[in-house]
Amino acid sequence: MAVFPPSPPPEAAVPEPSPELLARATAVRRAATGLAQTSDAERRGALLAMADALEADREAILAANRADLEAAATDGLAAPLVARLKLDAAKLDGAIEGVRQVAALEDPLGRRQLHTELDDGLVLERLSVPLGVVGVIFEARPDALMQIASLAIRSGNGALLKGGREASRSCAAIHAALQRGLAASSVNPQALELLTSRAESLAMLKLDGLVDLIIPRGSNQMVRFIQDHTRIPVLGHADGICHLYVDAAADLEQALRLALDSKTQYPAACNAIETLLVHRSVAPAFLERAVPAFAAAGVELRGDPAACALGVPHAANHDDWATEYSDLILSVRVVDDLEQALEHIRRYGSRHTDAICTTDPLVADRFLAGVDSAGVFLNCSTRFADGFRYGFGAEVGISTQTLPPRGPVGLEGLLTYRYRLRGQGHIAADYAAGARAFTHRSLPL
Amino acid sequence: MAVFPPSPPPEAAVPEPSPELLARATAVRRAATGLAQTSDAERRGALLAMADALEADREAILAANRADLEAAATDGLAAPLVARLKLDAAKLDGAIEGVRQVAALEDPLGRRQLHTELDDGLVLERLSVPLGVVGVIFEARPDALMQIASLAIRSGNGALLKGGREASRSCAAIHAALQRGLAASSVNPQALELLTSRAESLAMLKLDGLVDLIIPRGSNQMVRFIQDHTRIPVLGHADGICHLYVDAAADLEQALRLALDSKTQYPAACNAIETLLVHRSVAPAFLERAVPAFAAAGVELRGDPAACALGVPHAANHDDWATEYSDLILSVRVVDDLEQALEHIRRYGSRHTDAICTTDPLVADRFLAGVDSAGVFLNCSTRFADGFRYGFGAEVGISTQTLPPRGPVGLEGLLTYRYRLRGQGHIAADYAAGARAFTHRSLPL
Repeated sequence: MAVFPPSPPPEAAVPEPSPELLARATAVRRAATGLAQTSDAERRGALLAMADALEADREAILAANRADLEAAATDGLAAPLVARLKLDAAKLDGAIEGVRQVAALEDPLGRRQLHTELDDGLVLERLSVPLGVVGVIFEARPDALMQIASLAIRSGNGALLKGGREASRSCAAIHAALQRGLAASSVNPQALELLTSRAESLAMLKLDGLVDLIIPRGSNQMVRFIQDHTRIPVLGHADGICHLYVDAAADLEQALRLALDSKTQYPAACNAIETLLVHRSVAPAFLERAVPAFAAAGVELRGDPAACALGVPHAANHDDWATEYSDLILSVRVVDDLEQALEHIRRYGSRHTDAICTTDPLVADRFLAGVDSAGVFLNCSTRFADGFRYGFGAEVGISTQTLPPRGPVGLEGLLTYRYRLRGQGHIAADYAAGARAFTHRSLPL
Repeated sequence: MAVFPPSPPPEAAVPEPSPELLARATAVRRAATGLAQTSDAERRGALLAMADALEADREAILAANRADLEAAATDGLAAPLVARLKLDAAKLDGAIEGVRQVAALEDPLGRRQLHTELDDGLVLERLSVPLGVVGVIFEARPDALMQIASLAIRSGNGALLKGGREASRSCAAIHAALQRGLAASSVNPQALELLTSRAESLAMLKLDGLVDLIIPRGSNQMVRFIQDHTRIPVLGHADGICHLYVDAAADLEQALRLALDSKTQYPAACNAIETLLVHRSVAPAFLERAVPAFAAAGVELRGDPAACALGVPHAANHDDWATEYSDLILSVRVVDDLEQALEHIRRYGSRHTDAICTTDPLVADRFLAGVDSAGVFLNCSTRFADGFRYGFGAEVGISTQTLPPRGPVGLEGLLTYRYRLRGQGHIAADYAAGARAFTHRSLPL
């Protein structure tokens, strides 16, 4: 279509990949091509070898982490970030055990998802296969590198990995161990490549054709930036503005327990609630107990006028409804009915996870059908929206996009499929001419 | 991460949506929210009502199309485009019948894809749900509007639809009929909105939050432009550079039949081959017959030196291997072995569809496992890579991205899923504290 002019030249914000980066990424892709064709046993063996190598390099990894921590202290890194950066012996052992657990997961590859006879002797299959190469940008958390690398190899994918710079020494030590482990297995160690500079992770955004998926783990701003500067698909999540609606027919004791857990069990998590919606008819009784309970838990409540009239100490302004606090702050609104609650969630929610507390099955069904979020929950905490809790064994991330993979994403986020068609000289012209007709018969999977 | 600066201001190439477009898109989303909660019977009924209304408006639609054709004649529109634009009585009847066929497809919504007990009384389900609102930009082909609209409504999605401007009168007449049909059903007619200007279709790229997927059907350049100018996911396909490899163990008569069908049955299709790879040992015997056969079919062959030495009349240059001719031109390369064929496909292919012709089962398996394309075919024409031929009943498009949906995409390209968790007051803190443990027991689907 002539209406679409050619794309503008690449923006200066994202540098072109250097020849050296292109060569490394090409080597990862080549290794991934071989990895995709390995057996379940070979990939399992590779993960166990990775775990063994990490164990052998234990002291070197812990020493590298101590050096990272010293530099962080000099730089005055904030305490929560230091906690994430720190890799003590127990945490390292847990991460190594995690690698072995991923090895034990069922093979996700080669599963037949579709099996159809198109015509006599012409049979179609759809099989799960690896994506190819994933690019993961993660926070300054050394254990994340071990987890991501093991998920990538288990699912037959090469990976370009870039950790937060505060963890650079730890990541280098871990990466060296992982590659040494792979070298002792039948998987090419080049399948795992560590990027070490900001320029490299930016240039990765231009590696279309060599990288099939980018998984940014970090701030909303980072995810947005990446989405805006790459043609490569991005698995990430922007805001997590989750709601709990306390219905007229709620068990108020249960509602308070759910509200407290959903807010305080880990307030910085994306699946923590930011807003509580309370049905007008139960608002007085509920808030009478909830206001002191949240105060005792250190949570600042911000309410609409009706909520404030019932004891919520701070007034919410318009921005509050659209804010992911990621902190011990909760906005509270009194609503007239279910419809108003649904409208509020549609307007301000981020389609992440929203819950209702009610004993009325009809209201529950209307909520569960009417809220279009990745997770719609009844009478349980929003904090269950998590790959481990869902039983996926491991999580590559959480996606707030609407397209699959949506919500908590396990190994399947690193997979795609391939159609395999076997014939005996079948040509399309015969069907176009009516000489042959399709049977389209489902065969057993 | 501080390394990622805020995104630059929106580019001038893509205008901001007007308040009027925002209002219309908001109305589509609201209608889609209701549509998503309709029953199978209601959506089926809506499609049948759409078909009836199209039938009732038959004369008006045909007259509008004649007006489009007259304008096209004045503008000197090229013959193939006129053929696509033309909607005669038979084509219209076929399209209306197509709407009824989509009504008859099995309901894609509400399918349970996962069912797990997380703990006693805490049960997780994953259900198929509509994406929400899709934005489709399609060529000047009035029948495409009927097909896309019926797929959208069948799968519970609202749609913003923009056809090529040469078909604007036809599209307006068809859209009016479709909305009148919906008005006689339980589906809100606002679920289908027609965009009529270039500015609107460009502004649609900025409707994130209101549009969940953009499906551009058109040139590679258009798809690229859209990918570069929107945060909304795009289902589209760029190049289709497909290969047929004639192995040393090929049945040469079959290989020639497959090659001719794959190239000539519809040369402009993305699943037509652009390059033929021939094993050195059979190249003399194969090309001796293939060169005159392709000449007789009007196909220009361009070969590497070895192919030219065996009778291919034109020399291929480096660009030929990377070109989607979409025309009666075919490049031919003689390769030493399967590995060289695989290397060629990896280097120049677009991961669309690639085929091998061989009677050797081991070679076949190596090819089918080693080529990472959406379609890998054995002893059949690449032209089978198509939603209708695969038995999907209808096709929303073909995707050459690696992530699912990949390859020919049926109704499932318009779907996503939602996790539904029902508990009895379960909170996450109990599991974190070890007071309760997950069971993660699979339940029947």
